[in-house]
Amino acid sequence: MEKTAEKLQRLNVPELDKVLGHQFKVLDDGFVRVVDYMGTDASIVQAARVSYGEGTKTINDDRTLIRYLMRHKHTSPFEMCEIKLHVRVPMDSWRQWIRHRTANVNEYSTRYSIAIDASYKTDPDQWRRQAERNKQGSEGSIDIETGKNLTEKEAEIQEMCRREYLKRLEMGVAREQARKDLPLSTYTEAYWKIDLHNLLHFIELRMESKAQHEIRVYAKTIGEEVLKRWCPMTWEAFNDYWFEPVRLSKTEEKIVAAASKGDSRKAAEIAQSAGFLTEKDGKLRRSLECLELEDKLARLSITIPWKK
Amino acid sequence: MEKTAEKLQRLNVPELDKVLGHQFKVLDDGFVRVVDYMGTDASIVQAARVSYGEGTKTINDDRTLIRYLMRHKHTSPFEMCEIKLHVRVPMDSWRQWIRHRTANVNEYSTRYSIAIDASYKTDPDQWRRQAERNKQGSEGSIDIETGKNLTEKEAEIQEMCRREYLKRLEMGVAREQARKDLPLSTYTEAYWKIDLHNLLHFIELRMESKAQHEIRVYAKTIGEEVLKRWCPMTWEAFNDYWFEPVRLSKTEEKIVAAASKGDSRKAAEIAQSAGFLTEKDGKLRRSLECLELEDKLARLSITIPWKK
Amino acid sequence: MEKTAEKLQRLNVPELDKVLGHQFKVLDDGFVRVVDYMGTDASIVQAARVSYGEGTKTINDDRTLIRYLMRHKHTSPFEMCEIKLHVRVPMDSWRQWIRHRTANVNEYSTRYSIAIDASYKTDPDQWRRQAERNKQGSEGSIDIETGKNLTEKEAEIQEMCRREYLKRLEMGVAREQARKDLPLSTYTEAYWKIDLHNLLHFIELRMESKAQHEIRVYAKTIGEEVLKRWCPMTWEAFNDYWFEPVRLSKTEEKIVAAASKGDSRKAAEIAQSAGFLTEKDGKLRRSLECLELEDKLARLSITIPWKK
Amino acid sequence: MEKTAEKLQRLNVPELDKVLGHQFKVLDDGFVRVVDYMGTDASIVQAARVSYGEGTKTINDDRTLIRYLMRHKHTSPFEMCEIKLHVRVPMDSWRQWIRHRTANVNEYSTRYSIAIDASYKTDPDQWRRQAERNKQGSEGSIDIETGKNLTEKEAEIQEMCRREYLKRLEMGVAREQARKDLPLSTYTEAYWKIDLHNLLHFIELRMESKAQHEIRVYAKTIGEEVLKRWCPMTWEAFNDYWFEPVRLSKTEEKIVAAASKGDSRKAAEIAQSAGFLTEKDGKLRRSLECLELEDKLARLSITIPWKK
Repeated sequence: MEKTAEKLQRLNVPELDKVLGHQFKVLDDGFVRVVDYMGTDASIVQAARVSYGEGTKTINDDRTLIRYLMRHKHTSPFEMCEIKLHVRVPMDSWRQWIRHRTANVNEYSTRYSIAIDASYKTDPDQWRRQAERNKQGSEGSIDIETGKNLTEKEAEIQEMCRREYLKRLEMGVAREQARKDLPLSTYTEAYWKIDLHNLLHFIELRMESKAQHEIRVYAKTIGEEVLKRWCPMTWEAFNDYWFEPVRLSKTEEKIVAAASKGDSRKAAEIAQSAGFLTEKDGKLRRSLECLELEDKLARLSITIPWKK
Repeated sequence: MEKTAEKLQRLNVPELDKVLGHQFKVLDDGFVRVVDYMGTDASIVQAARVSYGEGTKTINDDRTLIRYLMRHKHTSPFEMCEIKLHVRVPMDSWRQWIRHRTANVNEYSTRYSIAIDASYKTDPDQWRRQAERNKQGSEGSIDIETGKNLTEKEAEIQEMCRREYLKRLEMGVAREQARKDLPLSTYTEAYWKIDLHNLLHFIELRMESKAQHEIRVYAKTIGEEVLKRWCPMTWEAFNDYWFEPVRLSKTEEKIVAAASKGDSRKAAEIAQSAGFLTEKDGKLRRSLECLELEDKLARLSITIPWKK
Repeated sequence: MEKTAEKLQRLNVPELDKVLGHQFKVLDDGFVRVVDYMGTDASIVQAARVSYGEGTKTINDDRTLIRYLMRHKHTSPFEMCEIKLHVRVPMDSWRQWIRHRTANVNEYSTRYSIAIDASYKTDPDQWRRQAERNKQGSEGSIDIETGKNLTEKEAEIQEMCRREYLKRLEMGVAREQARKDLPLSTYTEAYWKIDLHNLLHFIELRMESKAQHEIRVYAKTIGEEVLKRWCPMTWEAFNDYWFEPVRLSKTEEKIVAAASKGDSRKAAEIAQSAGFLTEKDGKLRRSLECLELEDKLARLSITIPWKK
Repeated sequence: MEKTAEKLQRLNVPELDKVLGHQFKVLDDGFVRVVDYMGTDASIVQAARVSYGEGTKTINDDRTLIRYLMRHKHTSPFEMCEIKLHVRVPMDSWRQWIRHRTANVNEYSTRYSIAIDASYKTDPDQWRRQAERNKQGSEGSIDIETGKNLTEKEAEIQEMCRREYLKRLEMGVAREQARKDLPLSTYTEAYWKIDLHNLLHFIELRMESKAQHEIRVYAKTIGEEVLKRWCPMTWEAFNDYWFEPVRLSKTEEKIVAAASKGDSRKAAEIAQSAGFLTEKDGKLRRSLECLELEDKLARLSITIPWKK
């Protein structure tokens, strides 16, 4: 076992200390602030060396070790870092946020206190259209004239709900009950504390292209403003290895292997027998999975074997 | 180690099977339904006997063993039972519910589908007053005339929000965005799966007298309609040992001990030096903690030592 | 919502900083060291104030607020503090330790490295007798002559196992396999990171009188050497409210209430109908639960109603 | 929201019911037994349909839906299934097993009862050599003559430890202390309960080629004997999409893309600038990451761009 020093100093990250407490603005009235943190890239290395002891001697460089851990999903050393954020988020997005169960949370209580007087507002050019292919997504925007109308109406609703909320309080209604018709766009605040491994998992799921815009901008802010300053080597490794990698299933592996050997016919046959391609009335229909593979092939500059 | 049978049958609970799928109504339009379960009182006993092996031989009766486990907080055998509920709850209560992080959850997604067309409505006589002493509670009710007015207005707000929601969808706005101004009173549904130990913890916190009425009625329904049928011995033991017991701190223990010996003066002195009682202008002021102790003394029929 | 400062400084605890890295010795060759921490008593208060907002205004004193939170089991603010320890523990105790699932762990790997060359040894006067009443406990000690013999023999076994382990390695056997017959007394090391709430839970279970001696001394060290320096108000409140309180079940409550009113006969009747007392051949037999109640009555200086 | 039936029947899996309680043998004296379970492939589908509501209408086939969920890491529906196993495992492997923190566990207690009288024994031809490249692995086997000697010696050690353990008990030493020098090869037993999502994660990590042989055989047994019977569609999808897929980092993606376009030179340049390849004294040295990429290229039948 490594020699263990009798004296230790806490690890500080000057880059992060500079912005401690600073509100990184998100959406129209939200923010992300770092309140405290524990550890940094060096702590991951330190923890790995406790685990692997002599086993890590050959990797003498911190960056190389962090990249090795990330690549091989040795996740426990990343759990040795912890961060505490203060966030201000519309309740609608908070409903998604809170699904990450490994965090510690103290949310502003509207039983104890009057609800925060702010709602997330949508500008006329920010109304998004329902996506066709992706049932849960949006794509493109609503025309500006309709947008103006929707925005005006939204302001009306939000004001009316707030007015009624305040009236209830004035009438003596308990706060825990008065809040019941506040809109989901109402802002809430919370202290949110999480370890680095689980934070990466949060960012992976919430920063990806299919995540809802409103939570994506929070995940991006946490990644690019906070994580990049806090654990720069981990952030780099995460982007290289973990975030939106090309991942091939067993079937896709076989198709690519056939295509690489120049055997387009065999590639297409595999695709067909796996149900990626079906012929109907002489026409080729591609399944959802097939379309996903085609996106991957494009990323790898491999010609689609069934394209003429 | 106990002999392990080569053949096993799954444990069934006929009492629970009878109501499987049945909607136990809660609030005006909510419900709790049992979808599936694993294990029962007998599984707790079985698990305990694996753990303690010969050590449990002297307790030959299931009920006695379950009570022993409950009393001594040997919680792991209770984790061996699992239940899956389908619940329909206002989003406002769901926000509290979801704070229990040990459960598995599949919530109805308003990104994929149109929000459920139902809001939790308050009858004119159900509006509650803000509590004075308990910052987060309610007590008594609002006069019926004011209540009528509030209920009418509530209906208006809920209808307006719904109408605007539907209009947005019609205009082509993405579901994930259109929902942003739905009121918190909108119902949501979820599959909620949890082990028995954590379910007891949920019930402990949400059925207690200080919990908010709306979630209490759910906790009560789960306890009295579901748990009582599913694991009757556990339910009985929970109510005896775990739910709202008299709990005395070290200071309270000393005060009670002095009072039991008939030494009211010493009891009052301890209370004073612990800050429970302070004299100001010849008058005795009792702290919040002191009031809590007086409630406990009442439950134990012990005369309050500082009362004349 | 409270004003949020644009600038923050990390909270430091000078008392803890002084011993950062110091090895607090436990058992013959174990230790506990603080490697890093996040937050302190003040962070708990800060988090509570975010949650309760205006609701906490009336409690203007940190100590009072922490005691209030502890008393009412408002646990989430305590989760806002985190600590990272480096511990050296016999594998046998580590097997119990690791059952606390909410911590982050990096254990020394004997797949990567040669097992630590140290075993927990028992002095001749430290061999404990099997307890009679408590199936899982020990009480009193083995006579010194027998002890000497056991200690000698232990040293032999430990040496022999080690020698064989090293021989295997020399023969080229993989470390992951060579270790298979190391004794449970072999020391292991780990980084162990946990939030304050869960640490208190660990201490509650492992410092209590029924816990095994070997893990109790670790829990005590963490409590008295670490926690007391780190979060002194929390440590004080924990000992007052949470650690080994007098807890009365519903039945016990009724017995005490009858006894307080001087009605010993009724108290005994309740005890009898609850199965605490059974008469057999004219003799009173007391159940295990009855004995437990008698211990509580002693703490409260209440005369046992069925004692003559 | 879907119509919710008033009457439900629990889902049964006849294929699994047939083997309920059966001991699937593992190692020389270990086993895996299914004790109970909740749900099956159909429950995953059911849960997904609650979440996605109308959103799942287009996928009308269960298998397709399960594959979609698995491919897109929509993990929560898999958490709706739960299984309870009874396992018998050497303590050494149990130490790895228990690191999976999301399970519920009741382990046989050697404080309450006498330790199980069985140790995992190694046959002469089963001693494995330390791997060169993989610090934590093994490869090849020890010659049979040495193996015989090691096996004999192992039997001696195990017997001696057991004898001493029993002697201690006879002398009156407490069970909790007497066990301290039992070898790690001693068998333990446990009830182990886990949801399907976390079970897949366990199998992913413990069945992969780098996992230690002893735990791999347990993971394989759980996969092939239990999971395949319990949730056959999930098992198939897991093997296709989740288990040991080809995963390409951003750098690897670029190298493959260059190679696919026939530009070996550019591929090699990217590899070089990323540190995969370094020239030293006119010789090409490949990093560990480079070797890993070459393995992937082989799976995809892509010629290694820097191979002559």
